[in-house]
Amino acid sequence: MTDDTAPEFRRDPVTGRWVVVAPERAARPMALRGAEPRHRPDRERKPCPFCPGQEHDTPHEVYALRDPGTAPDGPGWRLRVVPNKFPVARAQDPSPRPPPPGGEGEKEHGRCSAPPPFPGEGAGGRGLFRTSPASGRHEVVVETADHLADPAALSDGRLAEVFVAYRERLVALAADPALTYAAVFKNVGAEAGASLGHTHSQILATPLVPDLVRRELAGSAEYHAANGRCVFCDIVAHELADRSRVVAETPGFVAVTAFAGRFAYEVWVLPKHHTSRYEAITDDAAGELAALMRRVAGAMDAVLAEPAYNWYLHTAPLRAGDLPHYHWHWEILPRTSRPAGLEWGSGCFVSAVPPERAAAELRASM
Amino acid sequence: MTDDTAPEFRRDPVTGRWVVVAPERAARPMALRGAEPRHRPDRERKPCPFCPGQEHDTPHEVYALRDPGTAPDGPGWRLRVVPNKFPVARAQDPSPRPPPPGGEGEKEHGRCSAPPPFPGEGAGGRGLFRTSPASGRHEVVVETADHLADPAALSDGRLAEVFVAYRERLVALAADPALTYAAVFKNVGAEAGASLGHTHSQILATPLVPDLVRRELAGSAEYHAANGRCVFCDIVAHELADRSRVVAETPGFVAVTAFAGRFAYEVWVLPKHHTSRYEAITDDAAGELAALMRRVAGAMDAVLAEPAYNWYLHTAPLRAGDLPHYHWHWEILPRTSRPAGLEWGSGCFVSAVPPERAAAELRASM
Repeated sequence: MTDDTAPEFRRDPVTGRWVVVAPERAARPMALRGAEPRHRPDRERKPCPFCPGQEHDTPHEVYALRDPGTAPDGPGWRLRVVPNKFPVARAQDPSPRPPPPGGEGEKEHGRCSAPPPFPGEGAGGRGLFRTSPASGRHEVVVETADHLADPAALSDGRLAEVFVAYRERLVALAADPALTYAAVFKNVGAEAGASLGHTHSQILATPLVPDLVRRELAGSAEYHAANGRCVFCDIVAHELADRSRVVAETPGFVAVTAFAGRFAYEVWVLPKHHTSRYEAITDDAAGELAALMRRVAGAMDAVLAEPAYNWYLHTAPLRAGDLPHYHWHWEILPRTSRPAGLEWGSGCFVSAVPPERAAAELRASM
Repeated sequence: MTDDTAPEFRRDPVTGRWVVVAPERAARPMALRGAEPRHRPDRERKPCPFCPGQEHDTPHEVYALRDPGTAPDGPGWRLRVVPNKFPVARAQDPSPRPPPPGGEGEKEHGRCSAPPPFPGEGAGGRGLFRTSPASGRHEVVVETADHLADPAALSDGRLAEVFVAYRERLVALAADPALTYAAVFKNVGAEAGASLGHTHSQILATPLVPDLVRRELAGSAEYHAANGRCVFCDIVAHELADRSRVVAETPGFVAVTAFAGRFAYEVWVLPKHHTSRYEAITDDAAGELAALMRRVAGAMDAVLAEPAYNWYLHTAPLRAGDLPHYHWHWEILPRTSRPAGLEWGSGCFVSAVPPERAAAELRASM
């Protein structure tokens, strides 16, 4: 920044999306009185369907960590993955269609303006308006048997099991040839979209690669073609040398505020070494990652007074193999502003806090 | 829809973005208890800087509709455009750099994965992390001298003057060769980003074309190259024949629920005949458009119990000339859901209300 309040355009190095960092906007009425504080949903189902003893209220579990000798769909578990009772997409095709050769993700790497291949092409309207049955799988990771709202309240060891569970589900979902991408995400607080107050994550696996992931795949493929390197590896190297946006690091991971994020205090957590598929993470690395995510969430709680937030994984499409240009990472997005007409209408996001200042504040609270 | 509750993928015909329409999600706890109701900002400045007598509290007006004989920046006006006191971008270069040949918008039509040309290239960091002073102009359209919160409370004639003012400011801003795009948008209710309770719109003009507009330009150019027609003209023709998503129409315009919108009850208002530049609208057409926008906003108020909403213009870049593939339109976006980790993380939006049902409800309230 040339001076501390001059507004600045910044370009996201992966997707090319530009944002505005405008510190003087913090002076306007109603601006940044702090992030949206998180609350438990005020209309929770009682009894909580994610608590022990209520296993009959969820579909059959597909993964669980259980005490020896306990039966599926009964008590005795400490982590449980079940199909979502209100799925965004659902398994519905008894004889799944094989995916196009190479998978949709790979075919899309070098372009993003063209319409993506669409499942069931022509089935629900040819040409202009295309529809397709929303096939897929939508799962819930119940992270603990305790009725806690806050994932940071789990011990490092218990949270490590959550990050291992994400991996195990990606591996399992990849075995279904009808699925191309699995989005892993978490909503903390009703303001961030949580509809139940018992801490949980979600996995939505679909035959389509979602928009933002496609754009990252395309941007990183283009960068790799031009420079022969992974753009995320270059980001990691730059951030570790520069330090101004580094929030915390471990031997294998670094947490940085996003150079051109959509929200103030947006943090990315990246492996230091190149790896495109989250499925390849080891148990040890998952533990290291979980502990780092927990520390970052704790620092956000301290600096932003327990904000509502999301975390989500960006990883390669299922069965895409090891990609030289892509690099999985987590993004943690606190609700530090309320997107308005500019953001929804134009896609240009405005932040009143420079990422360097946000990183300094978070570092001081680690 | 094959049955009334089966979830469905839908593809936006312009950008290729896909969304999920999942009516059965409405059954889950906390789902769609109605849209976020709008409220006036609770920390408004007193006295209101947009009221008559407070003209000294805003920068000098750049456009106004005034009683004969009244002086600029004094009372006697019924509509006033002033620079934003807390600008996202600001004029700061005394000798503006000429734009690249052809303008950024034109150069970007056929691609969107590559980083866009960036102003001040190299000035704020070469290569990976690019920054640039946020040059531009950020203006406020104060739509009435009355301290009203609701634009639909204006008469058709007064609202027509607002839609003419948008045009006049686009024409004026196009004269600055440093500016490439002007985003026109409106926030209604604090929940939609309004920070002052006196009804107003904003115009942000920048040297860059914003992300979502670039994607529409790219998608529509590709459609035109493949089909020889404007994709928006084809949408209009299809919707007028099909009728299931038509909310209302006038001789020159049609309002439809978006086939694959991000929010339930999202409405697009399009000219029936091809026109890429909003600057070309006539006074009469602006009046017809304003009356239609007002009717749609009124129907949303009735169906969604006065929701917070935004409206924003998508039009061609400044000085882009008449484009055969692009077609200006307004989008009206009510806050019918709270984007969560899936939306922010993957770009996949989920709506619990099929656009055809939303259109039927809105039609019934016109």
